[in-house]
Amino acid sequence: MAASNTQSKEDTPTLPLLLIHRFPSFKLSFFPFLYTKYTVLDQHADPPQTRFADLSKSARLMLCVGPTPVTSADLDRYPAVECILGSCAGFDHFDLAACRRRGIRVTSSGEAFSDDVADYAVGLAIDVLRRVSAANRFVRTGSWPARKEYTLGSKVSGKRVGILGLGNIGWRVAKRFESFNCSIAYNSRKIKSQVPYPYYANVTNLASNSDILVICCALTDETYHVVNKDVLEKLGKTGIIINVGRGSLIDEKELVEFLIRGEIGGAGFDVFEHEPHVPKELLALDNVVLSPHKAVLTPESFAALEELVISNVDAFFSSKPLRAEIELD
Amino acid sequence: MAASNTQSKEDTPTLPLLLIHRFPSFKLSFFPFLYTKYTVLDQHADPPQTRFADLSKSARLMLCVGPTPVTSADLDRYPAVECILGSCAGFDHFDLAACRRRGIRVTSSGEAFSDDVADYAVGLAIDVLRRVSAANRFVRTGSWPARKEYTLGSKVSGKRVGILGLGNIGWRVAKRFESFNCSIAYNSRKIKSQVPYPYYANVTNLASNSDILVICCALTDETYHVVNKDVLEKLGKTGIIINVGRGSLIDEKELVEFLIRGEIGGAGFDVFEHEPHVPKELLALDNVVLSPHKAVLTPESFAALEELVISNVDAFFSSKPLRAEIELD
Repeated sequence: MAASNTQSKEDTPTLPLLLIHRFPSFKLSFFPFLYTKYTVLDQHADPPQTRFADLSKSARLMLCVGPTPVTSADLDRYPAVECILGSCAGFDHFDLAACRRRGIRVTSSGEAFSDDVADYAVGLAIDVLRRVSAANRFVRTGSWPARKEYTLGSKVSGKRVGILGLGNIGWRVAKRFESFNCSIAYNSRKIKSQVPYPYYANVTNLASNSDILVICCALTDETYHVVNKDVLEKLGKTGIIINVGRGSLIDEKELVEFLIRGEIGGAGFDVFEHEPHVPKELLALDNVVLSPHKAVLTPESFAALEELVISNVDAFFSSKPLRAEIELD
Repeated sequence: MAASNTQSKEDTPTLPLLLIHRFPSFKLSFFPFLYTKYTVLDQHADPPQTRFADLSKSARLMLCVGPTPVTSADLDRYPAVECILGSCAGFDHFDLAACRRRGIRVTSSGEAFSDDVADYAVGLAIDVLRRVSAANRFVRTGSWPARKEYTLGSKVSGKRVGILGLGNIGWRVAKRFESFNCSIAYNSRKIKSQVPYPYYANVTNLASNSDILVICCALTDETYHVVNKDVLEKLGKTGIIINVGRGSLIDEKELVEFLIRGEIGGAGFDVFEHEPHVPKELLALDNVVLSPHKAVLTPESFAALEELVISNVDAFFSSKPLRAEIELD
């Protein structure tokens, strides 16, 4: 469908040009509306779009699918781009400095995925502390009737939750854990004046005062490996860490060592430093829960993203304010 | 330790008699305080207590460990028992009619386990809907780098949660799901006047209006197989069921059929009808999470139970009010 619609419109591009930027493996099937209102330019269209190279030079709006990198070289190829609509919660795949220099506006998925990621973070925390996946393995491998030894987990309610990054997602994580009578503290770039939770300017201090450390900040130059050896030492043997942000927020090699030595209580990973590669040492551990970067993915969140993107494409071409625009300060 | 202490005190039973009723496999190691203040009578002491048969006839207080059944025949053997201290959230293992006839008071674990069970129920629901355990299997079996097909889950936030049994546990389940912006409705024996949630006198109607059905009521003659074919049909293909109550609250055979035919969305089981036997058909399903009746078990809940039991033993012998007494109406 995509290819034929695009091809016909390409011959007479009377509709506004919309440049799609994506990995070849990322499908566009969840954006069918695009083809009815825009001339979609897709580098990976099958069959290829013969006028792609020509028309894409004039495209003012780029829709970036998933975490496909947008480099300075990409922007050289598409010199007319004024705005990039992202479809991820994070924006570490964009060369933001290059965007800033060229005056290109950038959006993220805003709040479209926030509930799902927060739900998943809480699910991972309960799973790690209460050993739900481990219980499931215990039953599925027949260990229950055999009365094999069962390792008890640890209570969730009342724990101290430290949140790294109190944005759209972190705020929702906090709200959910409050209902478990957990106390909340946070670290973020700046203190948030309207937030009732204690603020720690220093992640190590936050870890010292947390039983559950939830990582949901953006990956930037400043936050690369923000969870390092010092932080893990302070979190300690009974502490657990949940990462629903980006793999490189944690020094993964160090965390694996801590887990192997039993110097940290457990971990729930939705993201890894070298996806889809997962350190093989983790596969042998019973106190870790591993997930293939799917915290954002539900049919409902796709629908919310689609609604956001439609709204932003329309807003761009009618010069109205964009939703979920990233501050490029 | 238990046996020698007991044995010495047994010879000169100057301390009040405390009768322990337990399966042989249930350990007493988490009640060390008992041996310092009471003459502990334990049918399964090793070595056996020679005066057990004799002294147990005079015991006024029974401590029942875990779900060990207390039958009318047991009560015939211990004619002086006036009070049974339970250590479970449920009380279906007691012959309550016999207790009522004999004027025996009965307690449960009260709120000692309530937070843990509620936490676990929420964890199971997130796990089933968002497929956390399935994601874990996906990663651990190497399917991620192989780019095998990944089945998406369904959003948790905003779902309609139906709670069967709005007691100590159900109330906490409701409070937690509210923080996920879920709507709550419930069924219980009677409408609760101070509760803001819609009440359904009929479980089938509750199921019709629920996406997540959480079973946390007591097992009684009235609630046996309360989740039957009709209820499952009404819950439907996208509905999920979470059971942290007792296995026999659900017609398990029927539920397994519904799951196999894909006529219900998924299920999280902490309890089963014939524990530790788990229907083998469930082991083949990816949309069920299986747990070996451990929702109550954390070191923290054991500590809370121990505190409750100490307090109730003391209260009994000093004729003070008992905590967590069950109404035998």
